[in-house]
Amino acid sequence: MPIANTPIRLPIPAIPRGFRMAGVRAGIKRDATREDVTLVASDLPATAAGVYTTNLVFAAPVAYDRSLTPGRGFRGVVINSGNANACTGQRGLEDARAMAAAAGQALAAAGDEVLVLSTGIIGEFLPVAKVTAGISAAAAALGADDAAAVSAARGMMTTDTRPKLAGGTFSAAGSSFSVFGMAKGAAMIGPKLATMLGVVLLDAALDPVDAQRILAEAAEETFNCVSVDGHMSTNDTVLLLANGAAGRESLYSAGLDACERTVREVCETLAREMADDGEGATHVMRIEVEGSGSRDEARRIARAIADSPLVKTAVHGADPNWGRIVSAAGYAGVSFDPAALVLRVNGILLFRAAAPVPFDAEAVSTSIRQNRETLIEVSVGQGPGRIRFYSSDLTADYVHLNADYHT
Amino acid sequence: MPIANTPIRLPIPAIPRGFRMAGVRAGIKRDATREDVTLVASDLPATAAGVYTTNLVFAAPVAYDRSLTPGRGFRGVVINSGNANACTGQRGLEDARAMAAAAGQALAAAGDEVLVLSTGIIGEFLPVAKVTAGISAAAAALGADDAAAVSAARGMMTTDTRPKLAGGTFSAAGSSFSVFGMAKGAAMIGPKLATMLGVVLLDAALDPVDAQRILAEAAEETFNCVSVDGHMSTNDTVLLLANGAAGRESLYSAGLDACERTVREVCETLAREMADDGEGATHVMRIEVEGSGSRDEARRIARAIADSPLVKTAVHGADPNWGRIVSAAGYAGVSFDPAALVLRVNGILLFRAAAPVPFDAEAVSTSIRQNRETLIEVSVGQGPGRIRFYSSDLTADYVHLNADYHT
Repeated sequence: MPIANTPIRLPIPAIPRGFRMAGVRAGIKRDATREDVTLVASDLPATAAGVYTTNLVFAAPVAYDRSLTPGRGFRGVVINSGNANACTGQRGLEDARAMAAAAGQALAAAGDEVLVLSTGIIGEFLPVAKVTAGISAAAAALGADDAAAVSAARGMMTTDTRPKLAGGTFSAAGSSFSVFGMAKGAAMIGPKLATMLGVVLLDAALDPVDAQRILAEAAEETFNCVSVDGHMSTNDTVLLLANGAAGRESLYSAGLDACERTVREVCETLAREMADDGEGATHVMRIEVEGSGSRDEARRIARAIADSPLVKTAVHGADPNWGRIVSAAGYAGVSFDPAALVLRVNGILLFRAAAPVPFDAEAVSTSIRQNRETLIEVSVGQGPGRIRFYSSDLTADYVHLNADYHT
Repeated sequence: MPIANTPIRLPIPAIPRGFRMAGVRAGIKRDATREDVTLVASDLPATAAGVYTTNLVFAAPVAYDRSLTPGRGFRGVVINSGNANACTGQRGLEDARAMAAAAGQALAAAGDEVLVLSTGIIGEFLPVAKVTAGISAAAAALGADDAAAVSAARGMMTTDTRPKLAGGTFSAAGSSFSVFGMAKGAAMIGPKLATMLGVVLLDAALDPVDAQRILAEAAEETFNCVSVDGHMSTNDTVLLLANGAAGRESLYSAGLDACERTVREVCETLAREMADDGEGATHVMRIEVEGSGSRDEARRIARAIADSPLVKTAVHGADPNWGRIVSAAGYAGVSFDPAALVLRVNGILLFRAAAPVPFDAEAVSTSIRQNRETLIEVSVGQGPGRIRFYSSDLTADYVHLNADYHT
């Protein structure tokens, strides 16, 4: 499958203090010109947190990381693409441990001080020798400049057309801190190339409980609010590492709030990038639901709209087909008064009081056609629930990418 | 949108005694050569039952029929295609009543002795004058031969490429009874042309409670086990009318069982026909799940597999991509032991004991390519839950049909 060398969206964010990284070519991917092993090192022992797929069928690295996080004392993350180490049974678990041990050795750390991410083909055993050789090469290439960030992000890509990077800074107690994020995929977007992976690094110090709460809350509002095809993978994982290189004291109170806000912004940028890079996508759909009983209800409504092939094809066709959106909201399994539903697309009112509203269909269509992002705003009442959700449209290219591939 | 005149699958089932029907052209559809009003008449007052969309946003005819069923004394059903009378507020309800009243007048019955079905464009008011003229024409054309059955089934079509008919017979207490079914669509398959509609007629006598139970149970295992794109419409309705023309005594015991079985078979044939006629479909997917804790759990697993765009595109591409199927089962929200999962495609074992099984990928691929139906068998344990579910594959034609249409 051709991977376009789409330019990265600048600026490339700074790598936080005390972290170094590299992505190298280890020959795991069929295309030997692409990076497929990434190593992230933390000079100081870092607190780590993780959020994982809720799929009953989960991969070996998910089992491995889940047993270790949240916790303290982590020295790095090792990532491979091209092989998901999923549905590989006991041997898969041993391979994940071996991968962690090799990375630990390269970083002068123990195996259980390194977390592991894999993405790629399901059901084939990990080529451990290639991964190990890649880890050695990456350890020798570790850096903290733009090239290091880009190669590391490229090393986790599968069907992504570009690396996804985001960054932010915040101040607390007189110090300045950086947050760096890199990610790949968007829920099971690829042909046997599973998984959304994310790594968030920051140079503040966090207690494990705070790190886990901040990551889980940010993921809830960002990565859990993006869907390309509704297919949840066996490997979905987001890790957060906080190493305290810019301030050894654990954050609290206002500092913690600023950290939480910045982590969330970084995660939202990455989540939006994933929807934008959805396979074959010509539009990003931003779905804003408000007025439901709870955030979870808002998300269920948003997801029903986001995952409807009829809504997705209507957006692709620049068709202001409000009937598809309204009826998708109606089957989300959430109770609301249909008479209270108000729908706007790209700011234009289409539906209110259980009946369509006269509108300029050509203007809406033109607006959809001329913008990469389509904004779908749904209000279902006066409740406190609200969510922002990203998705992409459904195109014939998506079908070709996923049907014309053979195992 | 071109509608192919695909030949009907013979044989055309017999219309049960005491029923007559006709489909006529009333000019509601843009294509004036297509039937769009169907009238079904029962010479004797019939017991009627109905099952309806659970979408919060439901159409006027759904509200109308739901208020009347289950009940006795029905003399007919009137159906229009080309306009769904959905999202049309209070005026929509009045239009549905007017349509019933016009049909009642044509059948020398009261308005509330006739049930109403509509399908087509959402959010436009029903062209009542055209519908009324169509009802008069249909009343003058009522018949009980093959041509009557076909015209009636055609009068409910939207994006269907062919009318969908099914029939069966059963004996009870020395009498022979017939069941006749006609249907259209497959859950919101069309561009603004909503809806799965079904009408089941039989010449046995049933109490309303029995009729409702038989229809609900049959729908649960057939129409509720078919999905083309997972989008539930505002108008989905199945009606059952039992007029007792072949035996005035209400069925009970063994007769009721035979009736139930035959209604179920008729509904299953119609459900499978819908999946087979899914927009752009090149394959019917038959998904058999067993071993779950309950039928509902089995259905959730089957639906997750059926609705996954990655599974649907894999089937289209004849790719034995078991990872997509296994991982879809894993995110169905049903608890099972992944190590117990066994997967077969077209009878060939692909996955067992949490690991792939060596298999001849080319043989599976050839088998998928050479058969219209792809059989996906999933066992998740030893529980009593089982279900048969029909879906269709996802093709670029589906995207073109749904994206290249403009309101």
